[in-house]
Amino acid sequence: MKLSKYFLPTLKELPKDAEVMSHRLMLRAGMIRQASSGIYIWLPLGHAVLKKIEHIIREEQTNAGAIELLMPTIQSADIWKKSGRYDDYGAEMLRMKDRHNRDILYGPTNEEQITDISSHYFKSYKTLPKILFHIQWKFRDEVRPRFGVMRCKEFLMKDSYSFDVTEEDGKESYNKMFLSYLKTFQRMGLKAVPMQAESGPIGGNLSHEFIILANTGESKVYVDKRMLELNIPESIDYEKDSKGTVESWTKYYAVTEDMYDEKSFEKNVDEENRLVMRGIEVGHVFYFGDKYTKPFNANVQDKDGTISPIQSGSYGIGVSRLVAAVIEASHDEKGIIWPESVSPFDTALINLNPKNDELVNICDNLYNKMLSSQTVLYDDTSNSVGEKLTRMDLIGIPKQIILGNKSVENKTLEIKDRRSGETVIENIDKFLEHLNNDKPS
Amino acid sequence: MKLSKYFLPTLKELPKDAEVMSHRLMLRAGMIRQASSGIYIWLPLGHAVLKKIEHIIREEQTNAGAIELLMPTIQSADIWKKSGRYDDYGAEMLRMKDRHNRDILYGPTNEEQITDISSHYFKSYKTLPKILFHIQWKFRDEVRPRFGVMRCKEFLMKDSYSFDVTEEDGKESYNKMFLSYLKTFQRMGLKAVPMQAESGPIGGNLSHEFIILANTGESKVYVDKRMLELNIPESIDYEKDSKGTVESWTKYYAVTEDMYDEKSFEKNVDEENRLVMRGIEVGHVFYFGDKYTKPFNANVQDKDGTISPIQSGSYGIGVSRLVAAVIEASHDEKGIIWPESVSPFDTALINLNPKNDELVNICDNLYNKMLSSQTVLYDDTSNSVGEKLTRMDLIGIPKQIILGNKSVENKTLEIKDRRSGETVIENIDKFLEHLNNDKPS
Repeated sequence: MKLSKYFLPTLKELPKDAEVMSHRLMLRAGMIRQASSGIYIWLPLGHAVLKKIEHIIREEQTNAGAIELLMPTIQSADIWKKSGRYDDYGAEMLRMKDRHNRDILYGPTNEEQITDISSHYFKSYKTLPKILFHIQWKFRDEVRPRFGVMRCKEFLMKDSYSFDVTEEDGKESYNKMFLSYLKTFQRMGLKAVPMQAESGPIGGNLSHEFIILANTGESKVYVDKRMLELNIPESIDYEKDSKGTVESWTKYYAVTEDMYDEKSFEKNVDEENRLVMRGIEVGHVFYFGDKYTKPFNANVQDKDGTISPIQSGSYGIGVSRLVAAVIEASHDEKGIIWPESVSPFDTALINLNPKNDELVNICDNLYNKMLSSQTVLYDDTSNSVGEKLTRMDLIGIPKQIILGNKSVENKTLEIKDRRSGETVIENIDKFLEHLNNDKPS
Repeated sequence: MKLSKYFLPTLKELPKDAEVMSHRLMLRAGMIRQASSGIYIWLPLGHAVLKKIEHIIREEQTNAGAIELLMPTIQSADIWKKSGRYDDYGAEMLRMKDRHNRDILYGPTNEEQITDISSHYFKSYKTLPKILFHIQWKFRDEVRPRFGVMRCKEFLMKDSYSFDVTEEDGKESYNKMFLSYLKTFQRMGLKAVPMQAESGPIGGNLSHEFIILANTGESKVYVDKRMLELNIPESIDYEKDSKGTVESWTKYYAVTEDMYDEKSFEKNVDEENRLVMRGIEVGHVFYFGDKYTKPFNANVQDKDGTISPIQSGSYGIGVSRLVAAVIEASHDEKGIIWPESVSPFDTALINLNPKNDELVNICDNLYNKMLSSQTVLYDDTSNSVGEKLTRMDLIGIPKQIILGNKSVENKTLEIKDRRSGETVIENIDKFLEHLNNDKPS
């Protein structure tokens, strides 16, 4: 993408009212624009990152055996009355009436809708186990939206739902999602720590939040430091690896504020391993058995003929929130530093002097050749050298290829690593040769 | 995907109340489920097709130079009051109040929101031309939703918006989108005919509907037959090809009912070329100049310093409706016949007798090898031969690979073309050799 044709409205001034770094950087980098309180427009750069994160989540859900469908955003109030949550949910639920005066709402989550689906299709043990997921916009009418897309009203969520015949199988599904979450966040360059958590309005008694440690987080957390050293299997066999890996994580003490108990923290964690920090919730998994299937009469017949409620859990990832979480975890004073896996473009190409025709030819040629193996943001604008370099550091593409007047004489270019700031001078022909050999994934 | 693990709730009985073939087939093939009146759940097979169609549209928008962003579903009423359409839109607009009693609505379209964006960012001729697009759910509270996803309330739409300094440039953007629409529908195996149309509540005086000819269509159309023979350039240079190609289409008479005038039809089209049919609208393009930019004070400064309203157009494609339109255009008495480009899976693999262990080994091996170059739906279930063949014909994957007991003795498989019904017997080893050579795209 040539920057002259792109739509990248970066800001020079520091945005007022943006309290946390990710919000400030997303505004400055031209990733988002507030449409109204707590509701955001995803400008092209922000949208590109959102899609990358969505893609990783989708792949890892599929790897774990989950099947994608898509439920609508607008739901009938009837199914929420059936579960009893229509009154419980309070003012956070966006309610409305359709033209025939029927109560409808913008889904804040989908337990009711998917349970209704399961009650129609999963009547025999032969159809189970199943994990279904969708990636869809949700709405929660936050009383005080803040921190940009971190706590906003309209947000993109991946939510999965598991359906099993027995509690034992249900816990296995829970473990699969638990493990896939570890992998998902790892692929985004994040260390997410699973912590015992309250299950709140979703219900059930087994629940973990996946939390990124960050000083700007909203939740206070109490963690056994040794968890930070744990490894995630490189290639996962979900049938075999789930239970063991989950146990290797859950044996350590790690809780959110709601579940914190001073005595057990001190009893279970040696002083040198106690970590008290703040964190950002990026995922939440729940096992709630028959909480929803019972009122929906979602029953399944087992091999021996017995009929009982389907055993269920639900598993959420905050897709749009993750864009901010990655920034909180990966930035410096110059701006964002994207992990390769979620960067809006693989590589940045900068022509420092587009008035130099020979240089323009060299850069155009490079750009066209690079495009066959990667996505490139090519700064071909007539902005000043300072503006170009500052802007590219701000928007955080991990690898920058920089060419100036000297590139014409010396036939060289500069390769800059955004994270370390280190630069390497390379011969242009050599660079082109390498292009064909090591294509970025 | 092994069918035993998939979620494909096909129906044996003919669905009641489904009037048109696409609706009937989508229900029977387990593609959708109605959540409430006019609101649908996209089950995995339907979702897979929806994503394929979305992907083609995204690629062709990008090829035409449009840039993707994402606007939220919930909009403030304020911007609609500014354009004057808040009152005009009537009961079709889903209106609500947030917890602070502010008027908000579920966007039925996005002219206001994008014009508001343009008024903040496109102040100089240097920032234009721009075409921005997004693919987002919309809501229109139809008084009588019908024909399944063809006329439903919550639907997925791709909408683009063009921004130019002059009317001349604006028309060029219009032509680019016009041409990209021809290409987009062609890639889905559809012949979409652009017709002069009323611009209705969107406004402006230049507008074309893209219409698939089908007896079940809602609109009556009057067309010069010779348009059906026109070709679309194989590879398009949008800067050079747009105007000429558009003129080669618009020189023929083709109108929707609203614009029909008997006299001009008879005057402009020789009797043997007059075609009167029904059609399904799948796209609609509008050029409306400053209709929205004027009330939003979205002004741009030209090279010479003059300041004038940005010239705009909008361009919609019904993404979810297209799933139904493709089926209307491509089915037979047995079921759906997907064009390769939008098929939920590239290939179907059927094991007619999973009780034969040797046959299972052969099929499993085939399946694993096929997966490296294509997506496969593998029927490994214990259903009867009849059920398997009927179901696979119903869901319409264009290529079926069928193996039965004889495959073990003869080391052969049957390749069936869903459209023609023709079958070819091939040696299994030869088939595997071919796999490596001609990978489906």
